[in-house]
Formats: sequence, structure tokens, C-alpha cells
Amino acid sequence: MSKIVTAAMVVIGDEILSGRTKDRNIGHLADILTAVGIDLKEVRVVSDDRDAIAEAINQLRLRNTYVFTTGGIGPTHDDITADSVAHAFGVPCGYDRKAYTLLEQHYATRGIAFSDARKRMARMPEGAEHIDNPVSVAPGFRIGNVYVMAGVPAIFQAMLDTVVPTLETGAKLISRTIPSSLPEGAIGGPLGDIQASNPETIIGSYPKYQDGTFWTEIVVRSRSHEKLAAAAGAVESMLETLQPKQPLAR
Amino acid sequence: MSKIVTAAMVVIGDEILSGRTKDRNIGHLADILTAVGIDLKEVRVVSDDRDAIAEAINQLRLRNTYVFTTGGIGPTHDDITADSVAHAFGVPCGYDRKAYTLLEQHYATRGIAFSDARKRMARMPEGAEHIDNPVSVAPGFRIGNVYVMAGVPAIFQAMLDTVVPTLETGAKLISRTIPSSLPEGAIGGPLGDIQASNPETIIGSYPKYQDGTFWTEIVVRSRSHEKLAAAAGAVESMLETLQPKQPLAR
Repeated sequence: MSKIVTAAMVVIGDEILSGRTKDRNIGHLADILTAVGIDLKEVRVVSDDRDAIAEAINQLRLRNTYVFTTGGIGPTHDDITADSVAHAFGVPCGYDRKAYTLLEQHYATRGIAFSDARKRMARMPEGAEHIDNPVSVAPGFRIGNVYVMAGVPAIFQAMLDTVVPTLETGAKLISRTIPSSLPEGAIGGPLGDIQASNPETIIGSYPKYQDGTFWTEIVVRSRSHEKLAAAAGAVESMLETLQPKQPLAR
Repeated sequence: MSKIVTAAMVVIGDEILSGRTKDRNIGHLADILTAVGIDLKEVRVVSDDRDAIAEAINQLRLRNTYVFTTGGIGPTHDDITADSVAHAFGVPCGYDRKAYTLLEQHYATRGIAFSDARKRMARMPEGAEHIDNPVSVAPGFRIGNVYVMAGVPAIFQAMLDTVVPTLETGAKLISRTIPSSLPEGAIGGPLGDIQASNPETIIGSYPKYQDGTFWTEIVVRSRSHEKLAAAAGAVESMLETLQPKQPLAR
């Protein structure tokens, strides 16, 4: 059996839960992890609350290879991710000398005050390693298997680009998508039989609804090219036998 | 203290975790709940796995007024939400007579076979109540404080429209958004002081990054118009004292 590497994501921020900001990081992380062969198993969106953040991180880091967090690492009072992650790991949180120096120099060269608020961005759990921030200097960090990154999409994506090459990746889940004008209800039975007789594949069926009409996207996934081809072939011939009599309806 | 009504959401579907489908339901539910005065406290995206679904539902239903789920109620083998919710509640899952009759008639009048796959959509945990589906007939359901709805956005939104008027709602969290050309680093200190001296408000600060420049959106929330006005006023005068000297930088 090929190696499986799993991940979970914790999105930190009241602004997502209030609807004020629409998350754009979940889909991006999912795309990147799928591309490199890491299975995203769970995502949690939690509020700006220390215990909520720590609980999510502690539940997820124990059962996944990696945990990625976004949000709450800025300079304001509601940026409590560093303290919350330190609390989750039971280690102190304080100024990281390297981050402090980095930020101090950054602002000095630009003639900008290194305010107490900006100093907050140098706080990290003891033992954390930096994740470079090519956009706005203030680093994210890794502690254990938890990667703490910014919530601003442009910065999150830049940080993730530096993290991904360092990750252990698993056997890649490859997929084939088979569209069908048939509604799910017409193919559900035979599709279930094909899934049953193709155990090393994951067959997903996704109803699409447009202008009052249902059609279906069938996605066959596997870590084996052979198993994928066999299952996809079975789906295609099943569809040929059913098409085109069946009227459209879910 | 005004009444607080809380909710959690469980998004069910491998297609979201793989990145194939970008979720559009989290933001919609967040907008609607905020509008009616229900606090969305947590969202979890879980895979098409019975135990993962049941664990999320059981953890969240005990600590929230309501739990809303999307996805996995269609006719195919990977639609396991009904069974998973029944498992979470420890009750049997079987054909619901009313749903069965509803679907049987729907397909009969349209001359479409009522296949075993379509019959799956009539399965519900024992004791569940219907949530009408004006789009494609197959109902969602409510059991206890858990509302199980479709993942297709058009259907989810239609189901939610019928559910929301039946919900107990709390004191509405009102908010005022104050944009500032100042970066977070310049206002973090005084903003934290304002939060400290305005305990019945929640002051959020959201960094915006555009074309190499940071600016900030400050959002003041409260359940009291008076407290909101006081804190927002303090933020505005704080900004006036800082503006416009500070050069832009996070």
C-alpha cells in the first residue's frame, strides 16, 4: 500500500464566521495539497478565541501529518494565534530574537517607528522556526507539525510556496472526471456496484444543477493508474448502456 | 445581558477537501445567520466518512443552539449523511414513509423510474422532520438541533430560506466598519487600549494589502447601539490624532 500523508487546516478569524470576509485560502490549500499528494482530511474555521484555537490545533495535530493555520498573526490585539498555539503546545510565547531583529531593521531602514504593536509580530512559541514572508517581512512559524501562516491570501500563498517543498508527500491521488447528462438518480445503483467491485478507487458523484436540469459529474480517484483506468472504464461503459433514453431528473 | 444563540456548520464532502469544488455555502450561511442575530461559532469541513461526520456533529450539537450540515444527501453510494447522522444520534436510519411517497409520486407523474438510488433520498434517521426542497423535491431533515441540507448551493439556499424563520434568534450583533489608510502596525497599540476600555464591544482589525501597500479595516461590533457608538467614536478620534503623518507600512 502506498504511503499516505494527511493534513488538516485551521482557519482563524471572526471575520470569516461573520461573513464579512469570504475565505479564499481553503480552496487554495486544497488545490496545492492535492497536487503534491497530501490528503486534506479536515478543515476547521474557529473564532478569535484562545481555547477554541488551541482545541482545534491539539485535536488535529495528533491525527494528521501536518496542520496548517491561517490568520491572526498581525500586530493588533485580536491577533492571538501565536499565544494560542503556544498555549496548545504548553510552551511560553515571547519575542523571537531573530524575528525581532528582522522587523527592527526592516522598519529602521524605512524610517518607520517599531511600535509595540509591530513588536507583537515578533512573538512566537518557544522552539518555533520561521516561515519567511517575502511580502511583508513579519514571519509565520512552524512548531512541531503545525505551520502558522498569514490570513491575507497574497501572504498566505507566498508563505505556502516556501513551505510546500519542505513537506513529505505521499502517493498522489490521481483522478479522472467523467461528465454525464444523466441525473444521479439514474446512475446511482450501477455506480454503487462499480465502487463495490473497485475497492482501491474512490468514486465520487457530484450533482450539477443548472437551469432546472440536473446532470452529474463522476470523479474516479485512485493511487494506481491501473485501478483508475479499470474503474473509469467500467463507469464509461455503464453510462453508454444507460444513455440516452433516460429523461433528465434527479 | 442579551440572549446569545450560537450555531455551528458541518460541510460534508471530499470534493471540497480535494479542491475540486470551491465551497460557496459557508459564506452564505455566515451572512444569513449574522443578519438574524445567530453567532456562527465554528465550521468544520469533513470527508465522506461516517465516523468523521458523526464526530463533528456530536461535538458541535452539544455546545451550540443549532448545527447546520450541507452535502451528502443525494442518491449515490457516497451520499452517507443520513446514515452518519443516525449513527451520531444512535437511532436507526431507514425509509421515511412521507419522503418515500413524496418521491414516488414525483417520479411517477414524470414517468421516471423510482430507482433504488432515488429511494435512497427517502432514507432518514428515525424521528427526523422534513425540510422542504422546492428545487428538486428530495427533502432535507431536522433531528434534534441538527439541520441536514443539500450541498448544491441553489438547493441549500432554498432549504435554508424555509428553516431560518423557524429559528430562535438572539440579540443581533451590530457593527460599524471604519477604514483607515494607516497600516495595522501604526494603530495596534491605541486600538488595543480602546478594546480594553470598551469590554462590551468586539473590535476587529483586518489588514488589507493592495499593490504593495497596507491599509486597515477596523470593525467594531456590539449588541448595544450605545456601546458601539462609544467605541467607534473612540476609534475615529484615535485615527484623527494619528493621521496623516505615518508613512504606509504594516
